Amino acid sequence: METNLSSYLSANRDRFEREMVDLLRIPSISTESQYAESVAECADKIAADLRAVGIDEVEVVATAGNPIVVAQRIVDPAAPTLLIYGHYDVQPVDPVELWDSPPFEPTERNGRLYARGAIDDKGQVHMHIKALEARLATDAGLPVNVKLVIEGEEEVGSPNLALFLAANAERLACDAVVVSDTGMLGKGVPTIATGLRGLAYMEVHVQGPAGDLHSGTFGGGVVNPANALASIIAGLKDQDNRVTIPGFYDRVRDISDADRKNMKQLPYSDEAFMAETGAPELDGEKGYTTLERIGFRPTLDVNGMLSGFTGEGAKTVLPARAMAKISMRLVPDQDPGEIEQLFTDHVMRLAPTGVTVEVRPHHGGWPWAADPSHPVFDAASAALNTAFGREPVYMREGGSIPIIPLFEQTFEAPVLLLGFGLPGSNLHAPNEWIDLETYHLGIETIARFYDAVAERMG
Amino acid sequence: METNLSSYLSANRDRFEREMVDLLRIPSISTESQYAESVAECADKIAADLRAVGIDEVEVVATAGNPIVVAQRIVDPAAPTLLIYGHYDVQPVDPVELWDSPPFEPTERNGRLYARGAIDDKGQVHMHIKALEARLATDAGLPVNVKLVIEGEEEVGSPNLALFLAANAERLACDAVVVSDTGMLGKGVPTIATGLRGLAYMEVHVQGPAGDLHSGTFGGGVVNPANALASIIAGLKDQDNRVTIPGFYDRVRDISDADRKNMKQLPYSDEAFMAETGAPELDGEKGYTTLERIGFRPTLDVNGMLSGFTGEGAKTVLPARAMAKISMRLVPDQDPGEIEQLFTDHVMRLAPTGVTVEVRPHHGGWPWAADPSHPVFDAASAALNTAFGREPVYMREGGSIPIIPLFEQTFEAPVLLLGFGLPGSNLHAPNEWIDLETYHLGIETIARFYDAVAERMG
Repeated sequence: METNLSSYLSANRDRFEREMVDLLRIPSISTESQYAESVAECADKIAADLRAVGIDEVEVVATAGNPIVVAQRIVDPAAPTLLIYGHYDVQPVDPVELWDSPPFEPTERNGRLYARGAIDDKGQVHMHIKALEARLATDAGLPVNVKLVIEGEEEVGSPNLALFLAANAERLACDAVVVSDTGMLGKGVPTIATGLRGLAYMEVHVQGPAGDLHSGTFGGGVVNPANALASIIAGLKDQDNRVTIPGFYDRVRDISDADRKNMKQLPYSDEAFMAETGAPELDGEKGYTTLERIGFRPTLDVNGMLSGFTGEGAKTVLPARAMAKISMRLVPDQDPGEIEQLFTDHVMRLAPTGVTVEVRPHHGGWPWAADPSHPVFDAASAALNTAFGREPVYMREGGSIPIIPLFEQTFEAPVLLLGFGLPGSNLHAPNEWIDLETYHLGIETIARFYDAVAERMG
Repeated sequence: METNLSSYLSANRDRFEREMVDLLRIPSISTESQYAESVAECADKIAADLRAVGIDEVEVVATAGNPIVVAQRIVDPAAPTLLIYGHYDVQPVDPVELWDSPPFEPTERNGRLYARGAIDDKGQVHMHIKALEARLATDAGLPVNVKLVIEGEEEVGSPNLALFLAANAERLACDAVVVSDTGMLGKGVPTIATGLRGLAYMEVHVQGPAGDLHSGTFGGGVVNPANALASIIAGLKDQDNRVTIPGFYDRVRDISDADRKNMKQLPYSDEAFMAETGAPELDGEKGYTTLERIGFRPTLDVNGMLSGFTGEGAKTVLPARAMAKISMRLVPDQDPGEIEQLFTDHVMRLAPTGVTVEVRPHHGGWPWAADPSHPVFDAASAALNTAFGREPVYMREGGSIPIIPLFEQTFEAPVLLLGFGLPGSNLHAPNEWIDLETYHLGIETIARFYDAVAERMG
C-alpha cells in the first residue's frame, strides 16, 4: 500500500503540475466585478477536478455572490470526518507592470511556478484534490470521510459563507476542519499555524473644496484635504509605533511564557526576515520583537492613499478630496466591530475644521488562536514529519482568515491550519509563486494525514 | 478715431471669439512630453495670428525646449515701448472625466467659453492680439512701440526664458512690461495685481520594503512607507496651520499699514470666497485674514499623493512606496532655493527609521511685489476706468508667475499685471473658462491703454 502510494505520487508529478497550471490560468479575481464570469468558470473547474479524482458527490451551490463548491466522499459513517476548506478566488494583480510574467500565464522559473493564486489559495486547494486522487486511485484507499467547501469570496471577506455554513451545518458536520491557506516558516520547515490575526479594513474620505482649485489663487485660504488626511493618519500612531486609538489595546491578551518560549525555539532571524522584505531596516511597536509584532500584536497600516495630481510633472492644484484605505490586524480578544467604531470615532476627533470626513468600513474578521492539545494536531505533526523528515514548528500567522472562528463555532470542531506557502511567496503582490518541491511534499503530507487521523481520532 | 475704434470692436466681436476658439483647440500642454507637436503647432498659430493683424516682424525662435514667439512693431523710436509677455502653453487636463465638455473643444455656456487655456493664458494673449488688430486696422493707429514675447513653457517653470531674455536684452529693451495672466477680484471689478507669490515645488518619495507585501504576513514587522509619508507631511505644519520648517518665515515681510488699509477697502467677503471654493469652512494660518493668507503669507500644500492600492475594494497590501507632490507659495523676501533646502532638511529630519526618503525639487520661482508709483500703473488705471467704467482695485495675487522678477531685472523696467480672469475660472482645474463680456472689455482696455501710455510716458 505504502509503496503503491509513493510510486503513484512520483509517477504523476508532471501531470499534477500541468493540471495546477490549468487551474491557475483562470483569472478568478473576486474583488473586481468584471471578473465574475471567470470566477464562475473557476468554480466549475474545481467541481470537475473533484469529480475526475473520484469524489462522487459534488455540487456547485449558487449564493447571493460567487458560487461555493461543496463535495464529499463518505467511506464509513463510523470513521472520523474531515472538512476541508479552501478558496478558489484570488486577489487583484495591480500593479500588473511589476509582474515578470503575466499573472494568469503560469510560468516556471527555478523550481517555482509564478501565477496569481499559486499559493493563495488555488495551489493549496489543488494539493488536497491531488492527495484525494492518490488515495482513491491506488489501493491505499481513503480511511476517513472527507467533505470539502471551496468558496469564491475569501478575498472579499466571505460575505455569503456564514449563512451557507449555518444552513448546511448538519450536512457538513465533521470532527475537524482542515485549511491549507497559510505558510511555512522556511523551506523544509513544516509549520502548523496556531493563530491568525483579525481584520478591520476602513476607508477614510476627506472632502475639502467642491472641486480642484489653483493652489496659488486659493492656497492658504482653504484647508487642503490631502494635508488634512496626512494629519489624521499621522494621528493614529505615536512615536513608538503604538496605535493611539483610545481603547484599541484594551482586549489584547498578554503574550504567555509558553508562547515566548516557543518563539525562542523557532528557526527565525531578523536578518533573514529583513532580507525577505527588502526593507532598509526593521521597526515596529516599541518593546516587542518582530515575531511578537506579527503574531501577537495588532497593527495599523495604510494599504492605499490617493489625492490630487500624481502624474508626470508639477501641477499646482489644491485637490478637492483625498482618500486612504487603512487596515488594522487584530489579535485575541479584539472585536472587529468594536475596533471599527473606535477607529471611526478617533478619526472624527482628529479631523480638522474646513474639511468633511467620512469613514466607511470594508469587511472585517475576528482574530483566532488554536488549542493545540487536540489529537488532530498530533496527526498533522506525524504526517508532516513523515513527508518532510522533520517535526513541524508551531507558530502564529500575521495574516487573517476571517472565517476560521466561524468554522470552529459552527461545527464545534477544531480547526487545523496546514499551510505550505514559503516566505516571500508574494501573495497579494506581484510575482506570487508556489515552490514545486513543497507542493509535492504537501500532497504527500495530506495523503498521509488521513491515516494519522484514522489512527488517532478513529 | 474714437468712434472708429469702438465700432470696429463691436462689429468684430463674433469673429474675435471664433478666432479665440481656433487657438484654444490646440492641446498645447507643456507638462506632458507627448504633446510636443501640438505645442509647436500652437507657437506657429500665434505667429500667424500676429502677422495677420499687421505685426510686421514676427519670429518663432527655437529653444532647448518649446519655441518662443517674438514679434514687434516699432512705430517711432522716440515713442514709449511696451513689452507684452504671455504664454501659449497650458496645464494638463486630468481628471478629464470631470470636464462637462472636452477641454480642447471650446464650448460656450451662459456667456462663458469653456476650454483648457481659456483664461490661463491663451485667451488673454488673444486679447492683446485683437487689441493690436483694432488699432492697426482702424485710423486709431498705434501710438507706442510694441514688442511681444509669447513663450511655451510657463507651466513648466520657463526653463529657457531667462537665457533667451538675457541673450536678447537689447532687442527687447522697453519702458514697461505688460503681462495679462492674472485675475480680477470680481466681474466688473477691474484689478491690477501688485504682488505675486513665489513657488517651491517638491516631490517626496518614501521607499519601504523592496516590493508590495501582504499586510498580514508582514504588517507590524516593517515600517509602512505610506504611514511614514503621512507623518512627514503632518510634521510640516502645526495645529495653527503654521509651517514648522525651521527658518521658513525668517525672510517674510510684515504686512504694512498701507496694505492692510487697502485690503479693507476691497470689495471682498469671506462668504463669497467660501461659496466660490465650495469648502465647508474657511481656515488657514492662525492670526491672519483670508486675503492676508493668500496675498501676504506663504503656505504649504499637498498637490498630489499616491501609495499602494487605490482601486475598488479592499486589497490588504503593505505598499513598497509612497509619493507626494508638495508645493509652497512664497512671499517677499523668501528665496525659493533656500526654501527648497530648508524643506529637504526638515523632511529628512522627520523621516522615520525603516524607510528611505528622497526629496526632489521641481521648478521654483521668486515672489514679487510691485512699486505702483510708476506712471504705467496710472496709465492702466485710466484705461481700465474708461473700459469698465470704474476705478481699478490694487491687490496681491496668490498665484505665481516666476518670470516676473526676471523681466524686472533684465529690462530695468516696471512690470504691469493687467489680468482679466474672473474668480472661479478653474485655471489648473477641470472646466476652465473665460467670461466673454470681460474678454471684450479686456481688448478695449488694452486698445485704450496705448494712448494712456503715450500720454504719460511719452
